[in-house]
Amino acid sequence: MIKVGIVGGTGYTGVELLRILAVHPEVTVSCITSRSEAGMPVADMYPNLRGHFDLEFSEPDASVLKACDLVFFATPHGVAMRMVPELMDAGVRVVDLSADFRLKDLDVWAQWYGMPHETPEWAEKAVYGLPEVVRDEIRSAQLVANPGCYPTAVQLGFLPLLEQGLVDPSRLIADAKSGASGAGRQGKIGMLHGEIGESFKAYGASGHRHLPEIRQGLTGAAGSQVGVTFVPHLIPMIRGIEATLYAELKDPSGFDRLQALYEERFRNEPFVDVMPFGSHPETRSVRGANQCRMALHRQEDSNIVIVSSVIDNLVKGAAGQAVQNMNIMFGFRETMGLEAPALLP
Amino acid sequence: MIKVGIVGGTGYTGVELLRILAVHPEVTVSCITSRSEAGMPVADMYPNLRGHFDLEFSEPDASVLKACDLVFFATPHGVAMRMVPELMDAGVRVVDLSADFRLKDLDVWAQWYGMPHETPEWAEKAVYGLPEVVRDEIRSAQLVANPGCYPTAVQLGFLPLLEQGLVDPSRLIADAKSGASGAGRQGKIGMLHGEIGESFKAYGASGHRHLPEIRQGLTGAAGSQVGVTFVPHLIPMIRGIEATLYAELKDPSGFDRLQALYEERFRNEPFVDVMPFGSHPETRSVRGANQCRMALHRQEDSNIVIVSSVIDNLVKGAAGQAVQNMNIMFGFRETMGLEAPALLP
Amino acid sequence: MIKVGIVGGTGYTGVELLRILAVHPEVTVSCITSRSEAGMPVADMYPNLRGHFDLEFSEPDASVLKACDLVFFATPHGVAMRMVPELMDAGVRVVDLSADFRLKDLDVWAQWYGMPHETPEWAEKAVYGLPEVVRDEIRSAQLVANPGCYPTAVQLGFLPLLEQGLVDPSRLIADAKSGASGAGRQGKIGMLHGEIGESFKAYGASGHRHLPEIRQGLTGAAGSQVGVTFVPHLIPMIRGIEATLYAELKDPSGFDRLQALYEERFRNEPFVDVMPFGSHPETRSVRGANQCRMALHRQEDSNIVIVSSVIDNLVKGAAGQAVQNMNIMFGFRETMGLEAPALLP
Amino acid sequence: MIKVGIVGGTGYTGVELLRILAVHPEVTVSCITSRSEAGMPVADMYPNLRGHFDLEFSEPDASVLKACDLVFFATPHGVAMRMVPELMDAGVRVVDLSADFRLKDLDVWAQWYGMPHETPEWAEKAVYGLPEVVRDEIRSAQLVANPGCYPTAVQLGFLPLLEQGLVDPSRLIADAKSGASGAGRQGKIGMLHGEIGESFKAYGASGHRHLPEIRQGLTGAAGSQVGVTFVPHLIPMIRGIEATLYAELKDPSGFDRLQALYEERFRNEPFVDVMPFGSHPETRSVRGANQCRMALHRQEDSNIVIVSSVIDNLVKGAAGQAVQNMNIMFGFRETMGLEAPALLP
Repeated sequence: MIKVGIVGGTGYTGVELLRILAVHPEVTVSCITSRSEAGMPVADMYPNLRGHFDLEFSEPDASVLKACDLVFFATPHGVAMRMVPELMDAGVRVVDLSADFRLKDLDVWAQWYGMPHETPEWAEKAVYGLPEVVRDEIRSAQLVANPGCYPTAVQLGFLPLLEQGLVDPSRLIADAKSGASGAGRQGKIGMLHGEIGESFKAYGASGHRHLPEIRQGLTGAAGSQVGVTFVPHLIPMIRGIEATLYAELKDPSGFDRLQALYEERFRNEPFVDVMPFGSHPETRSVRGANQCRMALHRQEDSNIVIVSSVIDNLVKGAAGQAVQNMNIMFGFRETMGLEAPALLP
Repeated sequence: MIKVGIVGGTGYTGVELLRILAVHPEVTVSCITSRSEAGMPVADMYPNLRGHFDLEFSEPDASVLKACDLVFFATPHGVAMRMVPELMDAGVRVVDLSADFRLKDLDVWAQWYGMPHETPEWAEKAVYGLPEVVRDEIRSAQLVANPGCYPTAVQLGFLPLLEQGLVDPSRLIADAKSGASGAGRQGKIGMLHGEIGESFKAYGASGHRHLPEIRQGLTGAAGSQVGVTFVPHLIPMIRGIEATLYAELKDPSGFDRLQALYEERFRNEPFVDVMPFGSHPETRSVRGANQCRMALHRQEDSNIVIVSSVIDNLVKGAAGQAVQNMNIMFGFRETMGLEAPALLP
Repeated sequence: MIKVGIVGGTGYTGVELLRILAVHPEVTVSCITSRSEAGMPVADMYPNLRGHFDLEFSEPDASVLKACDLVFFATPHGVAMRMVPELMDAGVRVVDLSADFRLKDLDVWAQWYGMPHETPEWAEKAVYGLPEVVRDEIRSAQLVANPGCYPTAVQLGFLPLLEQGLVDPSRLIADAKSGASGAGRQGKIGMLHGEIGESFKAYGASGHRHLPEIRQGLTGAAGSQVGVTFVPHLIPMIRGIEATLYAELKDPSGFDRLQALYEERFRNEPFVDVMPFGSHPETRSVRGANQCRMALHRQEDSNIVIVSSVIDNLVKGAAGQAVQNMNIMFGFRETMGLEAPALLP
Repeated sequence: MIKVGIVGGTGYTGVELLRILAVHPEVTVSCITSRSEAGMPVADMYPNLRGHFDLEFSEPDASVLKACDLVFFATPHGVAMRMVPELMDAGVRVVDLSADFRLKDLDVWAQWYGMPHETPEWAEKAVYGLPEVVRDEIRSAQLVANPGCYPTAVQLGFLPLLEQGLVDPSRLIADAKSGASGAGRQGKIGMLHGEIGESFKAYGASGHRHLPEIRQGLTGAAGSQVGVTFVPHLIPMIRGIEATLYAELKDPSGFDRLQALYEERFRNEPFVDVMPFGSHPETRSVRGANQCRMALHRQEDSNIVIVSSVIDNLVKGAAGQAVQNMNIMFGFRETMGLEAPALLP
């Protein structure tokens, strides 16, 4: 049994961590912080947790956090960056769900997040926690940068193609769509039900913060610089990401072997499901579950590989992957607390 | 570990039973039947179950069902009625999620379901499985009639008032609203997304099959014949029922004691949550959870008690309550397999 | 052709006024004000209006408003109250879509709106603009208080029963449900898509500002003080109100004559549609249209009259009714600009 | 005033035609046919039309249709093909909203629609009715094939690039998303609210009927064979299509001139709106309106042109474009009956 703290618990990622940890047999949540809501019972803000947690939101308190085995950061960017060093020094392990430690190129980070990075030494040491790529490093990591939601769906879908060098790495396209919970729980007019219900649009089409993260991950997989176009869209629903990926096969005659390649690549991954060729993964098939499902498609005799990849942005795209990382870091069974099927319908 | 069969597994109630039983530590699902889909892997119809069940839908086979400890019926009305006797004779226990055994007055049953009841002896013996009312009878029952979704939300909300005789039993009003999954998974034009999305309406306002079931339950609680008006409505969402209940307090000076009365009545009920006076339960706070949340309201110095009661129609209103009944029948911890918090957001 | 001004145009009521006036042949919109957005082209905020209006939001300017024939107020409460006298003195006519002039009892107004009323003389002179009740007074009114959304749906549904004295006026229940646009366009967390999508709840169940307005209107129709319980609910959709009304018939033998009574009462009303007995009006059948549809129901031999009444809260519940009032005030055909059918599906 | 008939009026395209024609000053609808619903008042199926049409669905009757000036076909494919010759011979003009006359290569047509084409002579003569491309031919056409919904959004978005030869025509990608009304109004399980609500998926990713239509149109614009990958997706909403288009600029230095090119290309088009560079068109901005809005994007210094193009699939993607074609064919003002702004919110 480990003691866990959550910094910044009022957002959707925070409540999702609590939902998952509520049934995790090896975890006690010892604190959940929120400056703005300190003193409020967690279950008053999130009535689904009534009867599950007696916790109140508390002011962040270093002494309490340092007494934890693991601290999750579910904060806006710029917060974890400043608080992490003290925890590292105290030997506390951290999974940061924000973007603070995801990018290795800190100039790029500064450009997209609008501030200089304050703890570059930890940015260097942080492990980018996509277990399907770097499971072994996660095991011993003290600081894990939990991947973004879009980057998780996009990277998992492209991985086998790039690792094997089968496609033109300069012509990758990721057309991705997300439910509204990805924008967090802030009182923005643009995220009102009246604004986004019954409507669909692209956003960030000229450039989105997840683009450099995707490029970094895909470049790592390809072993050389990739060219990727990434356009996110907003779906009038709450949870779920679907990414449709397009890549140009260098040798079209290799199309027939792709399905086997994907199945082999993810055969031992508990949270990646390669569906039969020509399937259409639905976001509802992963709603509430720490799962990525994907399927391959080809149109007539085209040399374009099409991959459709779905996750729940709050689970495999955030809190679930964070708990998966925690399980790996502490030697728990990797699926612990993450076994329940998705909620369908 | 018990062996469980499910008859009629292609509907939403069937998949929901599987979703819950997938993580139940004392249950093995040995068969799930469907005449129309025999041979199809369950996970092909319900991709959220990929990796959780290897089952195929099978033709109903008496010998297989008779080898079960418990059989759930998730069938249209009229099916369980005919199959139950053979299972009863074989000593199999049954939880029927259809309406076949809910009503004690079989003339009323025949009138609302459009056919004569074929096994009246079992209709008499069946226990109406609302654990908060008849837990002890359920323990030893061989045949449990699992309550309807609306009747669960409405009865739980009215119970304390009627049991204590505090309100005029001839003037009860239940204005109830349900998500679309309550209508099942059949190819009806009226349930298309294009027909019910972004729209709201009453239906069955001149009479709905759940009316006699509600009347029977409330009459039992009151100890005398009640007069109840019940109007269901269709919400453009998938899961959830909210029932707003109106009753006229005989002695308005007693209003102040109602909150304590409700809290006391449900203090030991793991699946009923009385929220603070004046709260507004949200259906999302019970999405996917076997929970009923309710709250009381009063407008100025009115003598009308207002109760808002919410459940997930597929869980506390169907499959979850069925598993709760199973747990009681087999002496498992009542909350087993039903502990996870609701999925919010 | 008249010149119209709109004060407070950034909310949903403002854009809806523009949508309707865009095709009104007798109206020129000469200004639309917004302190916060002054200088912004209207079509930048509301892209559906691109190509229809060249207007920018402007600071409220008394000289511009005084040059209008009619000014609509689509402001939060407390604004029109202060600006109206100057316009009245200048001979400008006003339709106020806020609540400032709806209540005749200003103590009640002060209690619900949290401030004293500053222009009681105009509150007295204002005509409560429900055309189906006071069309003749509207014709010559200088100041019209446009009814609230819920009050419109509830009053129209109860009117014939109360005017004829057929029901017990002390036991009226109005269970009403609204889409999210009724809450306006402000950055409130509680109205985020992530908060209210796929969920349903009551709100204001212990008391809502529309309760005194409803009570005033029904009391007027009944000719004596009524007792009414009103519970609003939030539907996960954008537009539409459904109100299910319950009243106790004094003489149940009169049930058969109610349908004819309703049809007769609204025979000449262009915007009230009495559907066949036992129908279920859908909110989508009035989406975008200045229409109220209603239908009557009876359960078995009950003495409870059930009325289901639907409107689009932004049209017949706000901007459409305001234009209807304008048409009456200026002698235009009452349906002018309001002829298009609802958008279904 | 012309007399118009509608064949196959029970689907969403049929009701949408009626909604638009209800306010068209030059049209009388003289019949609307449906074999299955003959005798049913149109307003019983579509309550938004109550008070607007007295029509009943009727059996298709050649003599009645031949007395029309124009007949719209809103039928499944294979119907118009057989009925058109008789109407042509009688001098009736036809706008076919089905796919029967859209493809010029009838082998391809037969392959995708699963039957041989029975009236190839008319397939040859039919004008593919995209007014922005062939307005003059439409003017005098007797038979117009109304474009499909996806093909309209995709073609309009790609047109300027291909007409000017600015992009690699072999590497076009169209990632398109549609609301559920595009699937029509049939009782298919897959289109239930319970199946597609709160979920998102690709479909037809290995090949969709609109692919050859898109290819034909783009090839026409480019003047040479194009290579296009088209993946449609299903959005959990009712109306609206968004297509995100990707094309590789031959000369990246030309990026700066694209915005001007698009604005110039559509300057005189009443129903195409080129928004400012970097905008994100929302489907709600065209809901119910015969409008295509689009915007251009570039990511950093990429040579990929990104175009986001939105329409209402039932209006500019079906019934609205059909009325636009009718207006052109009969010399009415092209915007007649199509002036109202979109319904937002």
